[in-house]
Amino acid sequence: MPPTPDAVLNHLDTDTDAAVARLSDLLSIPSVSTDPAFTDEVERGAAWVADDLKSLGLSVETVASDGGHPAVIAKSTDAMVANPKRRVLFYGHYDVQPPDPLDGWTHPPFEPTVAESVTAGDGPALYARGASDDKGQVMCFLEALRAYHATGTKLPCHVTVLIEGEEECGSKTLPAILEKRVDELKADVAVVSDTSMHDRQTVAITYGLRGLVYFDVKLHGPKRDLHSGVYGGTLANPATVLLRVLGKLFDEHNRIAIPDFYDDVAELTDEERAAWEALDFDESKYLGDVGSEPFGEAGFTTLERRWSRPSCDVNGIYGGYMGQGAKTVIPSFAGAKVSFRIPGNMDPLKVRQQFTDWLQSHDVGGCRWEISGHGGAYPILVPRDSPWVKAAAGAIAAVSGKPPALVREGATIPVIADLKTKLGMDTLLVGFGLNADNIHSPDEHFALRRFLLGAKTHAALLAALAEV
Amino acid sequence: MPPTPDAVLNHLDTDTDAAVARLSDLLSIPSVSTDPAFTDEVERGAAWVADDLKSLGLSVETVASDGGHPAVIAKSTDAMVANPKRRVLFYGHYDVQPPDPLDGWTHPPFEPTVAESVTAGDGPALYARGASDDKGQVMCFLEALRAYHATGTKLPCHVTVLIEGEEECGSKTLPAILEKRVDELKADVAVVSDTSMHDRQTVAITYGLRGLVYFDVKLHGPKRDLHSGVYGGTLANPATVLLRVLGKLFDEHNRIAIPDFYDDVAELTDEERAAWEALDFDESKYLGDVGSEPFGEAGFTTLERRWSRPSCDVNGIYGGYMGQGAKTVIPSFAGAKVSFRIPGNMDPLKVRQQFTDWLQSHDVGGCRWEISGHGGAYPILVPRDSPWVKAAAGAIAAVSGKPPALVREGATIPVIADLKTKLGMDTLLVGFGLNADNIHSPDEHFALRRFLLGAKTHAALLAALAEV
Repeated sequence: MPPTPDAVLNHLDTDTDAAVARLSDLLSIPSVSTDPAFTDEVERGAAWVADDLKSLGLSVETVASDGGHPAVIAKSTDAMVANPKRRVLFYGHYDVQPPDPLDGWTHPPFEPTVAESVTAGDGPALYARGASDDKGQVMCFLEALRAYHATGTKLPCHVTVLIEGEEECGSKTLPAILEKRVDELKADVAVVSDTSMHDRQTVAITYGLRGLVYFDVKLHGPKRDLHSGVYGGTLANPATVLLRVLGKLFDEHNRIAIPDFYDDVAELTDEERAAWEALDFDESKYLGDVGSEPFGEAGFTTLERRWSRPSCDVNGIYGGYMGQGAKTVIPSFAGAKVSFRIPGNMDPLKVRQQFTDWLQSHDVGGCRWEISGHGGAYPILVPRDSPWVKAAAGAIAAVSGKPPALVREGATIPVIADLKTKLGMDTLLVGFGLNADNIHSPDEHFALRRFLLGAKTHAALLAALAEV
Repeated sequence: MPPTPDAVLNHLDTDTDAAVARLSDLLSIPSVSTDPAFTDEVERGAAWVADDLKSLGLSVETVASDGGHPAVIAKSTDAMVANPKRRVLFYGHYDVQPPDPLDGWTHPPFEPTVAESVTAGDGPALYARGASDDKGQVMCFLEALRAYHATGTKLPCHVTVLIEGEEECGSKTLPAILEKRVDELKADVAVVSDTSMHDRQTVAITYGLRGLVYFDVKLHGPKRDLHSGVYGGTLANPATVLLRVLGKLFDEHNRIAIPDFYDDVAELTDEERAAWEALDFDESKYLGDVGSEPFGEAGFTTLERRWSRPSCDVNGIYGGYMGQGAKTVIPSFAGAKVSFRIPGNMDPLKVRQQFTDWLQSHDVGGCRWEISGHGGAYPILVPRDSPWVKAAAGAIAAVSGKPPALVREGATIPVIADLKTKLGMDTLLVGFGLNADNIHSPDEHFALRRFLLGAKTHAALLAALAEV
């Protein structure tokens, strides 16, 4: 692995006060994307990012779709880079969650303040909305670029920077932007910093994410709500039938009972299984913290079920009388939100068809299904031994002094799937957050040592990925 | 069967205009019991009924419990009656449903208006809120008493009249009144007019009602809502588990799958089955009108399932995300309203225990049940060949020229069960409404010919029941 230029790393070490000041400046902009009242502030956030990228010598464009918040796209020029044949796409977002509840904050959410991190050994941290998710992590990458620029060091390879402004409200218009600019955004590999470290000392490379298929399933019965005394027992109650059908979704081994459902699931290798064992996942803490106990598909550990097995959850149920007390009604319809998390190599379109077919295979006593889908995303599974993963692992070990943990996540980041399906590239998720960072909650924070670690790691990653 | 005195029947025939005027006067009082804004009007309704009963020579008392609307209790004196050893209790209610939606009414709901009934052959009808449910039917009985009183004819037997003011809001304080006044209210048999005729020509005696057991079943899981990507597949989702458990409530024959559930159900006799066949119940109209088709316990007709078999309905389901679109949440709890209609001779307390035990017999992966009940009522089943039924049938045939239909109902009238369990007497449900009367809806009405039929029938019923 090529060494990162010392000048670059030294610059990062000595420029920390200025870097914290820059991040604080960005954090003081309340770029809350979910609330139309903050639209101007979101645009101010985009402008700040665009200006900073311009100051680093990149060519910058701010693009927006109808009804969406702007995304900033920046690209290095040939003159800036050592190896113009290699290109890395960096993705992040400058928008933030709403700061509510405001009275939960020790310091005002948009007045960034340095104070000791609540995590023991984490040192001083910057407290502000967006500190960890994701402005702090975006600035890790921008500070790495800045260190190359400031020291007059050529970038190891081309970079494309895509910083969007609507991640916290679902990245609704981003897929259209990606599709329109395939050629412009295409790179050899993508790097994303919007996840957590494995623990305070260990950087994680997330090489797998589960995909998602989400359904709103409604069952329609009688034309109107009926009196359950007058009609009870004579016709199909859609709430009862919905429960009867969905109740059959699992077999006695807690496996999803849809025919052929598991056919495409990537099986765990012995090596992967052993590596996960070595991660010392604390199941009793993970489940005990939320007041639960292990429950799920027989034959797999909790971590295996979470990272590598499909799951199905009823996310909501509704219909009939939902208030206090009693109402003896046969509702005219009932519904459920049902979603599947699908690990590599499952196909969300196939799962959508399988579940739809399975629902329709049941006797519903003359009721009628209304099945609609919301979104859906492919799973991500980058081979653990891919050259990208190996190069990234080397860079991380060199900077942090410790090999990274190779992990998967049970959750879904739709944009990562889009990078794969629309732009055809794998993504390395290398994040510097911690679960204790209070993202989406009051007192969000990001430790200064992790800010520096992130910047140095990105500087080293560029050098490593340039040579793959 | 003893004949009804001609003078009484003749008086009813000739006094119809005045009777309609009296009923209109009562109907002009908006005694809406569910809305505290109408409390004064409810009291005005009670006073009107009390005054009218006093004018008929009865001793009258108005009683109220804390937080309840007043009930009027009236009793005949020994001097008024021919056979003081027999006593009939008449129950009805003077309160009414809210008139909403107001713009659905052709005539204002509390300005009673005579116009043609919407039912062909039903003749002119009085349109007003409460015309059929239940002021019109109460006045049938009071007009019968008035005819005896006005013609100087002794009542065939003692009467106790109980007209309550909170039927439309659940008769909450009535059971306490019944319990406190057991001796005062006890009679040989009860007569209630708050139901419908079998058809426009045929009076019905309802000799069976199903009871009710109602549950609010909540399943609690994790301490807080969780992200379904991070936790999906690792722990028990209470919405999913609730569906899985409740989905097992029915077997493949659509029978309730709780052990020993059907043990106490009164089996239909061949005679009853044949009699029901002869009722010409139009299943395709009954279910087709509401857009449904037959569905339920194998081996029974729709009418049998409705009147004589237990049913179980999920009356509502709730939990997790119930809005538009998608939210990938594992809810911390989910709930269902579940109720059972139980025919004679089932015991609601036993059913409550059976269902509770059944719920708790399932593996719920560490989740926790919260099971609460709302109300509950015993079923009613008066033998078809009881002397009361026979006497009532004779009186009805004599007045209407047609034998009554002997029917059951699938629904529950809790007060009828209270009359049985607290006062130990059977009830004859003899009503003069029609399903087309629009009770609880705009343009509620009651045909004048049915008002007269009801008054004459009650006059004859008293004579017949006095001689059993």
